Amino acid sequence: MSLIVQKFGGSSVGTPERIVRVARRIAAAKRAGQDVVVVVSAMGDATDDLVALAAAVAPEARRRHPREMDMLLTAGERIAMALVAMAVREQGVEALSFTGSQAAIITDELHTGAHIQEIRAERVREELARGRVVIVAGFQGVSRKREITTLGRGGSDTTAVALAVALGAERCDVYTDVDGVFTADPRRVPSARRLDWIDASEMVELATAGAQVMHPRAVEIGARYGMPIRVRSSFRDDDDEGTLITGRDPMQPMEGLVLTGLASDRGYARLTLRGLPATMEAATRVLDAYGAAGLSLDMVTVSEQGDGLSQLELTLKEEAVQEGEAVAQRLVHELGALGVDTRSGLTRIALVGSGMHDAVGVYAQEFAALCHAGVAVHTVSSSAISIQVLVDSEQETIALQALHDAFELSEVRP
Amino acid sequence: MSLIVQKFGGSSVGTPERIVRVARRIAAAKRAGQDVVVVVSAMGDATDDLVALAAAVAPEARRRHPREMDMLLTAGERIAMALVAMAVREQGVEALSFTGSQAAIITDELHTGAHIQEIRAERVREELARGRVVIVAGFQGVSRKREITTLGRGGSDTTAVALAVALGAERCDVYTDVDGVFTADPRRVPSARRLDWIDASEMVELATAGAQVMHPRAVEIGARYGMPIRVRSSFRDDDDEGTLITGRDPMQPMEGLVLTGLASDRGYARLTLRGLPATMEAATRVLDAYGAAGLSLDMVTVSEQGDGLSQLELTLKEEAVQEGEAVAQRLVHELGALGVDTRSGLTRIALVGSGMHDAVGVYAQEFAALCHAGVAVHTVSSSAISIQVLVDSEQETIALQALHDAFELSEVRP
Repeated sequence: MSLIVQKFGGSSVGTPERIVRVARRIAAAKRAGQDVVVVVSAMGDATDDLVALAAAVAPEARRRHPREMDMLLTAGERIAMALVAMAVREQGVEALSFTGSQAAIITDELHTGAHIQEIRAERVREELARGRVVIVAGFQGVSRKREITTLGRGGSDTTAVALAVALGAERCDVYTDVDGVFTADPRRVPSARRLDWIDASEMVELATAGAQVMHPRAVEIGARYGMPIRVRSSFRDDDDEGTLITGRDPMQPMEGLVLTGLASDRGYARLTLRGLPATMEAATRVLDAYGAAGLSLDMVTVSEQGDGLSQLELTLKEEAVQEGEAVAQRLVHELGALGVDTRSGLTRIALVGSGMHDAVGVYAQEFAALCHAGVAVHTVSSSAISIQVLVDSEQETIALQALHDAFELSEVRP
Repeated sequence: MSLIVQKFGGSSVGTPERIVRVARRIAAAKRAGQDVVVVVSAMGDATDDLVALAAAVAPEARRRHPREMDMLLTAGERIAMALVAMAVREQGVEALSFTGSQAAIITDELHTGAHIQEIRAERVREELARGRVVIVAGFQGVSRKREITTLGRGGSDTTAVALAVALGAERCDVYTDVDGVFTADPRRVPSARRLDWIDASEMVELATAGAQVMHPRAVEIGARYGMPIRVRSSFRDDDDEGTLITGRDPMQPMEGLVLTGLASDRGYARLTLRGLPATMEAATRVLDAYGAAGLSLDMVTVSEQGDGLSQLELTLKEEAVQEGEAVAQRLVHELGALGVDTRSGLTRIALVGSGMHDAVGVYAQEFAALCHAGVAVHTVSSSAISIQVLVDSEQETIALQALHDAFELSEVRP
């Protein structure tokens, strides 16, 4: 019998009424003859409420008490999974819930940000063989020392895709509050188009670049193991199939430029270290210092200034800007550089597609479109399948619309 | 080093501020040189909120989905224990939390009302040996099949006392929202006196009779294993020691009548089956029928009516009265009895003490006091250490005050 893993996010199970709705959907899939494993997130704001409770008894609880933070947070999915299991049973379908520990989702020891090592899915398989729907708590696992862990951001998506891989499922359906993956955020770009399919590596790029619909971590697992993922709405009653994230698209041409979509992510800042010695050693010292301070850098560009000097531009999240600036000041002092400039309030916009490497006009077209719309571009970076620019956050919507129009993303691809 | 088990109920950990207060108390005990194991209930109304969620997705969830109900409810203590552990760590004392499963509280398979079979306390002992305070979730355990169970009513008290026994603790301190055990409910009887100590078997009787302060189940374990229990307030900052529940009191005379206190419990109803055949077989048929219907009876009295007929009076909780009446009607029909009378709105009052069996005047004194106060007594029952009467609920306070005065319970015992 074919097996489907269905994942329901926090808003899909945010109220008892929504849980009953989700249960009907699960029961219908089971009655249609499929084996079903369900992964659930915590209800609505439940996790935020728990984080607030922790903050009220212990400042910086995540950093100072990570083991206890995991104990606390795992209560959220536990509540949701038990309620979903009850609601499915009310539909006349046999079901039971498993914690991450019971489902044997084995992780490393890294509390609040653990990584899945393996899934020993025997117990889940046994229950499936008995004809039951198995509801598994997302976001959580257990270490080999039997400590409870959580997977950090995107954890529930990651649980779902990893479980689908471990069980050899036919597909992982990720139910969410949107209709699928769009060429841009439809709240910002009204002409944005829903994609029927998207290449997994492009989806990784879009997700990394801020598309909220799925976490890049989960998409990466899907891409690595060739697990098809369908992103669809839990609020629609029709059979709309959402967006299929898959390794290959039978309709896609073998080669050539295909632009997929835009994603954006707010809350960036840029540090410019001026007048550094133009040596590999100096650049390495800078990057090492940020690594040692535990600060993750986003875009890094180096430019020659002449006279044996170079300039380093570092992009990092705004919440880390103070700490990042302190590191930069220290480096400027140690390396005898000229100074540090800081610019906050930036948004990173990514244009994602394939075949960009030999489509020489894309850069030019992007700059022309932004320039024409009056958008100032602060930093540019690119990968094999994306071009990323940093713009002022106030110009985010203008920039997205201009790029969406310029690259005709509303048009259906060949 | 001496070991103390401290148990904090839902109201003691009802808010982040209260959790911090509790953490200070725990840290102080640890710093004073004691090993400390802490058992916590769910915060305030957390369990009620979870029950309401369950009711919203599945009617009669406890009966229809007991396994999932246990999964759901155990989230409550998990949240509280993690927060308490964080707060204790904030006090600079090493601490960690354990679920019932991690603390190896092994129960039978009876979901929503499991019984503790054994506690394999090695993991708790190891952490104590490392100098850590161990916070254990109350109310929950794990079956030998590794299913999560809950202990039902009074579960957290039961966890605390059972853990104290398993660990060979010096004492179990039960922190609650009252100052200890009183001769009667001080909200009803203003002259009620706080007891400094109470005999464990008398406490079982008072608790069974409705004294809210501790669950009889937990008191019974304490009595059976000779574990001293101290009931004290978590809201007082002084060193008030509350009430010590213990097997023997060095101050108590070897023999003779000692009255300890009054307890009352509302919400009873009485069914009177009139004109039954006065045979053991008929009485047995009646009691069997209630057993088969899963209805638990409280007080049962049989009285001869002459002409080979007898009358049976059954006391049961008001919520079961409709079902109980239906059973009675069926029995009346089957046994050819005369009829059924139902009286609702009754309260059971228990006068608890020791040496009653040969203190012939106690019954008479009790009736005289109630009669003088204008209280009608509907049914009487007694055990070795208590006399129980059923009165109209409107007369509860008058009856309690009258008995408290008549037996001079405000006076300190010899």
